Amino acid sequence: MFSDSLQQRLYEQIVQIPLIDPHTHIDPHRPAARSLDEILGYHYYTELAHSAGMDKAPLDATVNPRERVRAILGFMDRYDNTAQYQWFLEIVRTFLGYTGDRLTADDADTLFDEAERRMAQPDWEDQVLRQSNLQQVFLTNEFDDPLSVFNTTRYIPCLRTDDLVFKLDQPTVRDRLAKATGIEVGDTVSLRRAVSALFEHFIRNNARACAISLPPNFSPLPVEDSELTASLGRMTPEANVVRARGVFWMLAQHCQEYRLPFDLMIGVNRRVYRDGVYQGQDLFDSRVSLIQYAELFNAFPTVPFCISVLSSGLNQELVSYSWIFPNVFTSGHWWYSNIPGYIEQDLRARLEAVPRTKQIGYYSDMYKLEFALPKYNMYRRLLAKVLADHFVRPGCLTEQRAVGVAQTILLDNVKTIFRL
Amino acid sequence: MFSDSLQQRLYEQIVQIPLIDPHTHIDPHRPAARSLDEILGYHYYTELAHSAGMDKAPLDATVNPRERVRAILGFMDRYDNTAQYQWFLEIVRTFLGYTGDRLTADDADTLFDEAERRMAQPDWEDQVLRQSNLQQVFLTNEFDDPLSVFNTTRYIPCLRTDDLVFKLDQPTVRDRLAKATGIEVGDTVSLRRAVSALFEHFIRNNARACAISLPPNFSPLPVEDSELTASLGRMTPEANVVRARGVFWMLAQHCQEYRLPFDLMIGVNRRVYRDGVYQGQDLFDSRVSLIQYAELFNAFPTVPFCISVLSSGLNQELVSYSWIFPNVFTSGHWWYSNIPGYIEQDLRARLEAVPRTKQIGYYSDMYKLEFALPKYNMYRRLLAKVLADHFVRPGCLTEQRAVGVAQTILLDNVKTIFRL
Amino acid sequence: MFSDSLQQRLYEQIVQIPLIDPHTHIDPHRPAARSLDEILGYHYYTELAHSAGMDKAPLDATVNPRERVRAILGFMDRYDNTAQYQWFLEIVRTFLGYTGDRLTADDADTLFDEAERRMAQPDWEDQVLRQSNLQQVFLTNEFDDPLSVFNTTRYIPCLRTDDLVFKLDQPTVRDRLAKATGIEVGDTVSLRRAVSALFEHFIRNNARACAISLPPNFSPLPVEDSELTASLGRMTPEANVVRARGVFWMLAQHCQEYRLPFDLMIGVNRRVYRDGVYQGQDLFDSRVSLIQYAELFNAFPTVPFCISVLSSGLNQELVSYSWIFPNVFTSGHWWYSNIPGYIEQDLRARLEAVPRTKQIGYYSDMYKLEFALPKYNMYRRLLAKVLADHFVRPGCLTEQRAVGVAQTILLDNVKTIFRL
Repeated sequence: MFSDSLQQRLYEQIVQIPLIDPHTHIDPHRPAARSLDEILGYHYYTELAHSAGMDKAPLDATVNPRERVRAILGFMDRYDNTAQYQWFLEIVRTFLGYTGDRLTADDADTLFDEAERRMAQPDWEDQVLRQSNLQQVFLTNEFDDPLSVFNTTRYIPCLRTDDLVFKLDQPTVRDRLAKATGIEVGDTVSLRRAVSALFEHFIRNNARACAISLPPNFSPLPVEDSELTASLGRMTPEANVVRARGVFWMLAQHCQEYRLPFDLMIGVNRRVYRDGVYQGQDLFDSRVSLIQYAELFNAFPTVPFCISVLSSGLNQELVSYSWIFPNVFTSGHWWYSNIPGYIEQDLRARLEAVPRTKQIGYYSDMYKLEFALPKYNMYRRLLAKVLADHFVRPGCLTEQRAVGVAQTILLDNVKTIFRL
Repeated sequence: MFSDSLQQRLYEQIVQIPLIDPHTHIDPHRPAARSLDEILGYHYYTELAHSAGMDKAPLDATVNPRERVRAILGFMDRYDNTAQYQWFLEIVRTFLGYTGDRLTADDADTLFDEAERRMAQPDWEDQVLRQSNLQQVFLTNEFDDPLSVFNTTRYIPCLRTDDLVFKLDQPTVRDRLAKATGIEVGDTVSLRRAVSALFEHFIRNNARACAISLPPNFSPLPVEDSELTASLGRMTPEANVVRARGVFWMLAQHCQEYRLPFDLMIGVNRRVYRDGVYQGQDLFDSRVSLIQYAELFNAFPTVPFCISVLSSGLNQELVSYSWIFPNVFTSGHWWYSNIPGYIEQDLRARLEAVPRTKQIGYYSDMYKLEFALPKYNMYRRLLAKVLADHFVRPGCLTEQRAVGVAQTILLDNVKTIFRL
Repeated sequence: MFSDSLQQRLYEQIVQIPLIDPHTHIDPHRPAARSLDEILGYHYYTELAHSAGMDKAPLDATVNPRERVRAILGFMDRYDNTAQYQWFLEIVRTFLGYTGDRLTADDADTLFDEAERRMAQPDWEDQVLRQSNLQQVFLTNEFDDPLSVFNTTRYIPCLRTDDLVFKLDQPTVRDRLAKATGIEVGDTVSLRRAVSALFEHFIRNNARACAISLPPNFSPLPVEDSELTASLGRMTPEANVVRARGVFWMLAQHCQEYRLPFDLMIGVNRRVYRDGVYQGQDLFDSRVSLIQYAELFNAFPTVPFCISVLSSGLNQELVSYSWIFPNVFTSGHWWYSNIPGYIEQDLRARLEAVPRTKQIGYYSDMYKLEFALPKYNMYRRLLAKVLADHFVRPGCLTEQRAVGVAQTILLDNVKTIFRL
């Protein structure tokens, strides 16, 4: 896999480091895939197949899963150059015993059957976790998630707050909030009580982070209680801005009070391609700056803000902001920037300029456990390469210390920042 | 040329792939250069010489071509570090038998005479095409180009529409439109008829693309017929915006109807350096986003939009937009981003994240045929390097399949997308 | 230091080139450090230690310097991955005889004592200059600096104009201007006389540049005399914009008249982290474009504008603007972009596309002479690497000519552009 022996040696040591995955979309009740359809249903494959020419018919819920797998695999030769294809190849090699070197539609049935067989094993979840060296997995829970009946030590809850900040104008969201908390929100006071109730609930269930994804034009600022109250009753664009700011600021106050880090995933525009496949519609606008968050970072010095960005341009700002602000942390390589070329340059800059204790190296963002292994492997190969070429070889770090840096950003910081 | 044998092998196979150059400014009546002056008259040389200190006097049309060549060559040692210098060096080596390794003013007369001699050969055009492995060449034709008396199979017309969209307030442009179509444009209906007449004319003459370059602040949106009609009679800044949007949207409708791909070259500001040399006055503003084109991409799902960008920042957006939108294609490495350092990172990201069938690898943008060879060679060397280092060596592609990817983006996609 | 022998050979030749450092914050009355506290007091260390968790107490002026050094060194293992740590390591190795390979708090006392001893030598300044191969050093002088009693051939004055442009609303600044020039400024005419007096004073004292740092939202434009006069008496945000533009334009006119290059350091936002350490509060907003300076570049064709930028995104614009505008020069790698990953890509692009006579390779930005050596070494290693990998190895430059390019951008251009 490496033509370079130093990179190879570093990689081999880095893969020994156990993982805590600090951001995923795992369903703790169905953490591992139960079929190949659940693997290829990941939006990376449906959207690439669609982008390369597949219509959306095979994705309809009424279509037989085997047919859907055939359809998506049938378009794979159009995107077998991509990093996403490599993840899939590594999954079928590692977990399904595939030994070929080029996947085509002809492999669909064999792989489908093999997946049925293997994934039905009662200890499949444990097998995957063990093989992936995964110790703990953060979730992304809707604010009204009951968080009941699952192992919250293995699967760590995280309070996802997009709906509270951006959809509180919707009656369904208010209903969900009322049901979850028993509080009918009518003004800032009742809203604050409801938000406190959510935090209490999440903290009681071992939650270790609050999280949100944010559009590029969002600029958090404090809002007067009276303004926030007024905005709760109005649905104008102006009121929406005030309400989003007010709720967001209130969440930051709660992060401070409850000592929860706040994951900010900055820059996504939703539903840009309106006719795209499920979860394959969002894009971004690179015209965004962390200066929009300066007031926030100043106002909450004790809240760790773990920042994910979508572009290398914003990563350069992030490197600088986390080098200056004690409460700003770099976090993973998110979505459209999670491909080798961008990871490599973004990672190198972080390692060269941000205190190593301020960096959360990676998270998988996965929906099914099988994806941790190939995604982390992609990252670890690049980490080994960057450490070899720019740190060990020029004499900045010994091999042993380079592995130490890897452990800091892959494991130790996750424990420290999220207080595990 | 390569210290790396894998890169060398890949390059040697990639240069065997025949070329169809999907964007040039070739004059089909004078496709090859007739003198060294026509080579060094390319704005890349006049602007670099001027930037490095040459005044504009030698560029005056009244100056003897030999003197002009001496002047431009005389400043070459100030920019012999550039990629543009390398193109010229490769031209004189390949086409003029130059054997030295550093060009100076002393070479001016010898090269000038040799060019006179060789370029006067009646089959010079064919020699250059053959030596460059060039099969077909796209043109850039003004909307009122008669497209007469040239081989439209070798030289493929392309309807350039900048004047229609941005200069329809000028009486000369309206006169040209009236002369070309026989239609006096006074309202949306007559404008639509005139545009249809242009498309008919171009399609009849084998045109395979519509193209336009766009300033960074342009945001296409549909315009009501009545608004467009009103804008045709007004010259205010607001009317200019409405008119540009309305005409542009109408062109996209025609691309849909006539099944022509639409080349969008996004981000150029015209006449930024007002006292610059001819064609050496334009620059860009990196604060532009493809989100400005979201409505367009949604509205015309059957039109292939081949997108060129001027910066690596916008390239990262382009990678993401073409990975999501089926009708968005990456296209070449344009102008200020057409230098090795930017090509290498932009190309790597495209190869890692965009279906290979969605990528138009390169175009030369040349005014004279002699430039295809050095420009494509620059690109092919970088392609060989990226494929070797990031695909073949890590085991993602075999050598043979890597060459296949090269053929897909250099040749096959051009045929498919432009329906050749 | 290099695993690559070509890079090593190039580096060894490049370090022989004597240096003129064209931008520093050296105090000519105390150019070298007198203690380790003055080395670690550099904001790069105080801000990184603070970002990594050190509170600001040890930075208080009342704290014993030895204690402060212990505190900053005590946090160093949290940022020993950074380029800034490498600078410090190289300083203690070169100037203090340190032979270990990992600095910790345990080294504090030994290093502190050794620094006391060595830096007290009467010829310490000369030793540092000699060992750093430094011939001349540009300063950054406030407009009311008397410039008296120092060697203005070794330490070259530079007129820093931030206060004039952005703080002329402050009575203290007007007082300083009145004291420095004997002119009470009340209108455009008196302001112009005062500015002329400053230029006269600086030119008389061997000043070779005018300099300013600029926020991302600044757009210079000419202002009518009457408008500027009016703005001098008003403190509204609008008046501040007009006044800044008017004063800035007047400075450019003086640069033209007095033949001084104008260093523009573009993009910094001041006091973003309001509770940060001294000089560790400023950040940037990458949403800035050189198009904001187009009118300026057009209006003053004889003034060399030496442009520093803070991001790779803006560097791509800079590469293009300096390739087109004869009066735009690339200048160094500033602040947040002065880390290896960004230097490498920014430098490569400049070398590939900008006439070599238009590039000022590097400046140290240092406050104490000891920092020239490690900072220039970082740059020279990257320069050797870029020249080896992208110029010499592909056959674009011979080794000898590559070293020539290095000399052009490190030394010759500084002499030519600043007329030394």
